Parts: sequence; structure tokens; C-alpha cells
Amino acid sequence: GSTFPMIDVDIAIDIILKQCDDVYKNENEKYESKAIMESVGMIVAEDIQSQIDFPPFRASIKDGYAIRSKDGAGEYIIIASSLAGGGDAHKLQPDNNNNDNQKKCIRITTGAMIPDGYDAVVMVEDTELIKSTAEGSKEERVNIEVSVPVGCDIRPIGSDIKKGAVVIKKGEKIGSAEIGLLATLGHTHIKVYGQPRITIISTGDELTQFDTEEKDIKNGHIRDSNSPTLASVVEEVSQNFGRSGTASNVKQYGIVPDRLEDLERALVDSAATSEVIITSGGVSMGQLDLVKPLLGKLGTVHFGRVNMKPGKPLTFATIERDNGKKTLVFALPGNPVSTMVTFYLFVVPALRKLCGHSNHRLPLVQAKLDDRIRMDPERPEYHRCMIKFDMDQHCFIANSTGSQASCRLLSMKRANALLVIPQKEGYLEKGSSLNAIIIGPLV
Amino acid sequence: GSTFPMIDVDIAIDIILKQCDDVYKNENEKYESKAIMESVGMIVAEDIQSQIDFPPFRASIKDGYAIRSKDGAGEYIIIASSLAGGGDAHKLQPDNNNNDNQKKCIRITTGAMIPDGYDAVVMVEDTELIKSTAEGSKEERVNIEVSVPVGCDIRPIGSDIKKGAVVIKKGEKIGSAEIGLLATLGHTHIKVYGQPRITIISTGDELTQFDTEEKDIKNGHIRDSNSPTLASVVEEVSQNFGRSGTASNVKQYGIVPDRLEDLERALVDSAATSEVIITSGGVSMGQLDLVKPLLGKLGTVHFGRVNMKPGKPLTFATIERDNGKKTLVFALPGNPVSTMVTFYLFVVPALRKLCGHSNHRLPLVQAKLDDRIRMDPERPEYHRCMIKFDMDQHCFIANSTGSQASCRLLSMKRANALLVIPQKEGYLEKGSSLNAIIIGPLV
Ligand SMILES: [Mg+2]
Ligand SMILES: [Mg+2]
Repeated sequence: GSTFPMIDVDIAIDIILKQCDDVYKNENEKYESKAIMESVGMIVAEDIQSQIDFPPFRASIKDGYAIRSKDGAGEYIIIASSLAGGGDAHKLQPDNNNNDNQKKCIRITTGAMIPDGYDAVVMVEDTELIKSTAEGSKEERVNIEVSVPVGCDIRPIGSDIKKGAVVIKKGEKIGSAEIGLLATLGHTHIKVYGQPRITIISTGDELTQFDTEEKDIKNGHIRDSNSPTLASVVEEVSQNFGRSGTASNVKQYGIVPDRLEDLERALVDSAATSEVIITSGGVSMGQLDLVKPLLGKLGTVHFGRVNMKPGKPLTFATIERDNGKKTLVFALPGNPVSTMVTFYLFVVPALRKLCGHSNHRLPLVQAKLDDRIRMDPERPEYHRCMIKFDMDQHCFIANSTGSQASCRLLSMKRANALLVIPQKEGYLEKGSSLNAIIIGPLV
Repeated sequence: GSTFPMIDVDIAIDIILKQCDDVYKNENEKYESKAIMESVGMIVAEDIQSQIDFPPFRASIKDGYAIRSKDGAGEYIIIASSLAGGGDAHKLQPDNNNNDNQKKCIRITTGAMIPDGYDAVVMVEDTELIKSTAEGSKEERVNIEVSVPVGCDIRPIGSDIKKGAVVIKKGEKIGSAEIGLLATLGHTHIKVYGQPRITIISTGDELTQFDTEEKDIKNGHIRDSNSPTLASVVEEVSQNFGRSGTASNVKQYGIVPDRLEDLERALVDSAATSEVIITSGGVSMGQLDLVKPLLGKLGTVHFGRVNMKPGKPLTFATIERDNGKKTLVFALPGNPVSTMVTFYLFVVPALRKLCGHSNHRLPLVQAKLDDRIRMDPERPEYHRCMIKFDMDQHCFIANSTGSQASCRLLSMKRANALLVIPQKEGYLEKGSSLNAIIIGPLV
């Protein structure tokens, strides 16, 4: 049997997260500057302050008429228009000394600047137009039907955002709302956490490139699905939960045969150019499972067995690069389902930490079983399922994706959560509530 | 006031979904062929059948020894090895006529082919090696400690997937698990729903490109945040909920001033080359809100007011292109928050339908209020909030993102859900349960 002690999932994750601290040598290596449109899903690496007051001028909230509050209701002459972005009114001042008993107002549109001297807006719904020019193109007189307080329907300068205010804090994630905010304030580039360089390696003499034609596949060989799966799941998790790796920083090294010298070269080469290496295969107890001893030779194996199903042989190591920086190596089991489950549980928290997310783990919810499930008496199980919120039952309902054999790719299909099944004798009845780790969209 | 009747949100969505049926003229225009690695998040447009049995050969589930079940427990000679992808055993046959009382077995690794004539695998844990060659490189004799039934630890040909079986149905979404499945079966390209061409237009004389330097911004002008926000939210929703638009098919037309002829040219040009046009601004009641009458002239306005807050002036129209195909035009209000909320509620279902998703709307859950909220007596409100699953309370808890003024971009920041607040007098107390539309990641 394996000489590695069996450790629990949570302990394994903690060991991994601790090693993340040694991947970069100094703070600045972690960050990069990005054009805002390229930063969606990334984590901001410094507090972002507004360099302006917003709105930058007193702006009307409504379409209507700018008046002096003290002039009150009554008939007004419309002396000018202040249109959003234009108009002729912004240089006009109300005549404070006028004695002609004529109230004067400015026609104004939503978002337009309130000319100096006016202090309230009456919305068009509370007015009645009395007279326009003959051709109807210009309003001349209006009846203001209500009296409004000072400041009515005016957004003061800086009322939304004050100059100097921190609008996005270090550690927050850029989404489309943040893009809008940054665009409003004129930020074109921001400092964000960078994306680690990830190398993906598939091991095994039995593997053939997935795009090999059927007739060219040798007896006893199968197509390598793990490299394309891992490359796409890095991107998929980034899309669903915020950037934790980006396609342009993911390298598919390809298939490495079960030969020590080939594997060693693959690992040494990749360690020199990657913060994270993900291998699959070569960690079970078979004659040619060479990865564990090799990792022990090239670096430090932190654990080599985890108390879980599937994924028990998961191995985690670090290899020192130049300057004492460490490359994280995840040696995932080669069975496709084990590969995916261990990626979600162990690789994702590391990638999220390296990318600056403060929640390292994928979100956890509770869900009610819609099936009867047999527990495993020997290991906690991560059971692929589809969860959906049920508006009648007021909770998530979990449907198993069928037989959970670890070679059975169909059991990952459409799964958006991993149910955490406790290690125990017996069955969980339909209706039991269980923890579920969300791995994909809820639709 | 507006001449358009006020309609309810659900009715508006139904009107939009119906018009989606006229965007393409024939079925084939909807589909395209994609390399599997480019198809993540897309919807499959035809049933995908396996062209092979998988596994394609009888494969060992364990590391151990292939035997004939009938030979039972006892001492065996190891006559060959069958390694995954190699080894020398696959041409060897057990000698059925042997009378030398010597049981013969084959050393076998996980995933390796079972040589013809053998019908069971005994895992290495249930064996004891008796003798190796002097240098230890080759096993010679082993004690099989248990007797196992026929088929033990062997995956039969086609046991995971039968040749001809439908592995992904029309209408299902491609995720990384589906990529793994397709790679396993040798599919390099698949037919998926295509992505609509989307043009984004910002309207308003007051707008300036967001990357304009502060000193170059004229008095009364503000930066256009809606175009970058809409471009990034198309991508963000696609990432979070499956492809409903793709960056390469999104065109930012730019800022169009409040002049009829400029607006008309923008709409006519865009309609000719887009399935979907999204404008912002120019739909309120101001003097220069030209979009609605213009859409009435160029096409059909299906509705021009919706009973909701924010977003009341939302307008939806169609413009006929060549061959009677229709371009959908969403004229969103220009206040940044109204723009985003109406995008999630009305544009997303249309884009999801065009992209083949069967669930058009974003996912709905229930969440408990963590604040006291005043309801609006006049309109149902879509209140930006952050929801998070609480493992102690067994439900989602919703936190308001603060003041909900529709100009206040900060209220969209970090929001991952829209709480649906009923139209009513009075307050909703802390702890009330409300429907929430999920718009972003739960982490
Ligand atoms: Mg192997
Ligand atoms: Mg406007």
C-alpha cells in the first residue's frame, strides 16, 4: 500500500493554501496593470479613489423647469433652455433685482446642468405649457403648478461620489458595475492581481491525443480527455466565480509517457515557467505510477493520500524554482471524474488565493436530496449532482447525476454541485439535507 | 406624459420572447460548427451520438492480476504483464489444456487491456508476491489470496458508453465535463447555436468617451459609462450563466448625439448588421428624447413603458431587415442603474433564447431580508442586493447595496441579485422572505 498517511480534505486544503504564500517572492510580482475592459472577474490590488466629484456639476434629476424656490407657483417666462450637454442657459443668471413681477425659469432636461442662481427643479408633469413660438419650436411661457423646496430634483456636485472617496477597495472583484463606475470616473487602467501561469500534463502510455482518428488508435489505447477537460475547467471556473486563471496563461504540455526521464523533463521544464502544474494520472499504486517518487526527488511531497471518494491518491508537492520561489504541483488521479473533483476541491482554492480572492473555496449551500443515497462507510464522498432552487419547497433540491463510478464521465455531465456525503454505514433518505459545493451555474 | 400604456414586467418579457422567433428566417442560420474547445457555455444544436464503445476494450479497474475466475485462490505463475497502453500480454492466451497444475496469471495495471481468455482481476491488495527475478525488475510468482467472480474489476467493452448512444442532447449546454466526454469519444467539432450580433449605442449630447482626460471634458458633460458597462455585462452574463453573446460579436457603435438624423443613421446602419441593438438614453420625456418616435418610424414599437422601478421608460421595438428578418431593438433608459437592471430583466432572456438556452430567465431563489426596506406604493421595485447562503439559517440572506437612486452606480457594485419588492404601502421587515433574481456569482 501507499506509504503516505491518509489526511482529511480540510487539512489538505489548509496545507495547499499555506504553500501559496511562497509562490511569489515579493508583492509586486503578484500584480499587473490592466485596461478596465480586460479586467472583468479580476481582483483589485489597491484602493481606487475617485479623482473627481460626481456628478461634476449640479444636474437635474427630471425633465422640467429650473426655478428659484422662493418664486413659488405661478406663471413664468421661459428665458432659456439647459439641455443635457448643451443649450444656451449656463451663462444666464436670474436677475435678482428684477421688479417687473415676472418670474423667470429655464427649460431643463434630465442630466442637464442647473444654471447658477437657480435652486430647484419642477418636473414637467407639475407644469402646463401656456405659449410656444408660432412654429412650436420654442417654449415661451409656462404655468408652474406647485411650489417646491430648495434643492428639489437637483443632484448636488459630488452627491453620488466625492472626490477622493475610495470607490473600489483592494480585494474587491471587477464586474460590469465596477467597469461602469471606473468609466464614469475616467479610470482607464487599474492594478489587479495577475493570473498564474498554469501547465497541464497528462501522463500515461495508454493515452492518445483526443483528435486522433479512430483508425489510428492502437489497441489498448484511449484518447486523453484530461488535458482538454482541465484547460476548459480552469476557464469555466474563472468565468463562473471570478478569474482564477486565464486561457492565455494556461499551457497544455501534452501527453507524457510512463517513463521516468520523460516525466522528469516535463516537470522540470514546467516548474521553471509555471506557478502551478497540474498533472493527471500516475499516482495510483500501479507498477508505472511514477509521479509520487519523482516529485519526492524534485521537491517536497506535502501529502500523497486524502480521505475522500473519488480522488484518494491525490498528491500535492512543491518544487523550488529560481530565487526560492515555489511551484505548486497538483498530481491528480487519472480517472476523469477523480481529476475533475480533485480540481474543484484542491486546485481551485489555490488558484483563487493566488488571484487575490478572499473566499478561496467555492460557495457552499444546503440542498435536499431527491434520491435515496447509500453512504460509503470508508470515506466521505463527493457526489455529483444537479441542484436547483425550488420556489415551493423554499430550498435547493439535489438530483444525483447517476452512477458515481470514478471512470464514468457521464456522471459529471450537467453537474453543478458536489454533494458532501458523510462517511457512514447505511443510507441517506430522500429529503435529507446535505451540504453542497457549487461548481457551476444554477440555470 | 408618455402615450404608451404601462405594461407589467412579465407581459413585456413575453412580448420580447415572441419577437425572437422572427430574428432568423430559417433554422440553419441559428447554428454554427465549433471546435470543442471553443464551445464552452454554448448550447448543442443536435443530438450527439457516440461513434465508439467506451471503453473500447475490456479494461482493468484495479492494479493487480488478471486470472481465470475458475482457477480460484492459490499460487500463480506470472506469465506476462499487461500495462496500460503497452506490455507484452495482449497476444498471450491462457492454455486451457494445461495439465501441469500451474495456475497462470497476467500482471495488470489500472486501465490496461484484459488479455483474451482471462475473465477477472484480483487487486494487488489481495495478493502476496512470492518471487521476483533476481534484480527485482520482473515478478515471477504470486499468491492470490481470494477467489473472485467472473467479471470482477473488469470494465466490459461499452460499459460506460455504447456505440450509437446519445451522449449530449440537443439543447444541452457544453461545460468542461462535456468537453471531456467529447474528447474521450473523438469529437473535435460540434454543431452549436450561434451568437447574435449585438450593437451597443449610447445616446446623448452630454456624453463624452470614457477615456477622455479630465481637462478635455466640457462643462455640463459626463463620461459615457453605459457602452463599456453593456459590453462587459453581455460578456459577464455569458460567463456566469452560459453563452448569451460573445465579445467578438459585440460592436460598440459609440456615442450618438441627440440629433434625429444621426440617430436614424445609427439605427438603420446597425439594424442591417445586427440581430440585436441595445441603446441607452433618449427614452424619457425630455425635449430631446428622440428614440421612441424614431423607432416608431423605422419599425414597430411593441411597448414604451413598463411598470417597474427603476426602468419605467424601457422601450422595445423591432426593425425589419432584408428578407423580412427582424432586428430586436432594446432602448434602455440612460440612468446607469436603470440601464443595467433593464438589461438583466429584458435583454438577457432574449439573448438566451437566441442562443438556444431553454431557461430564458436568470435563476430565481428566495432570500431573507437583512434590512428593513420601504416598499414603493406605485411600482414593483428591483432592489440591488448581495445574497449569500447562510449555513446556520439554512437560506440565502440578502443585504441591500444601499441607496437605490437610479443614477447611483454604487448601488450596482457587488450586487449579485435583484430583490423583487412588491408594489405596496409600508415596509418589509428584516427577516421577510422575498424572491431574488440571481445576476452574478454567489461568492
Ligand atoms: Mg497511468
Ligand atoms: Mg438623453
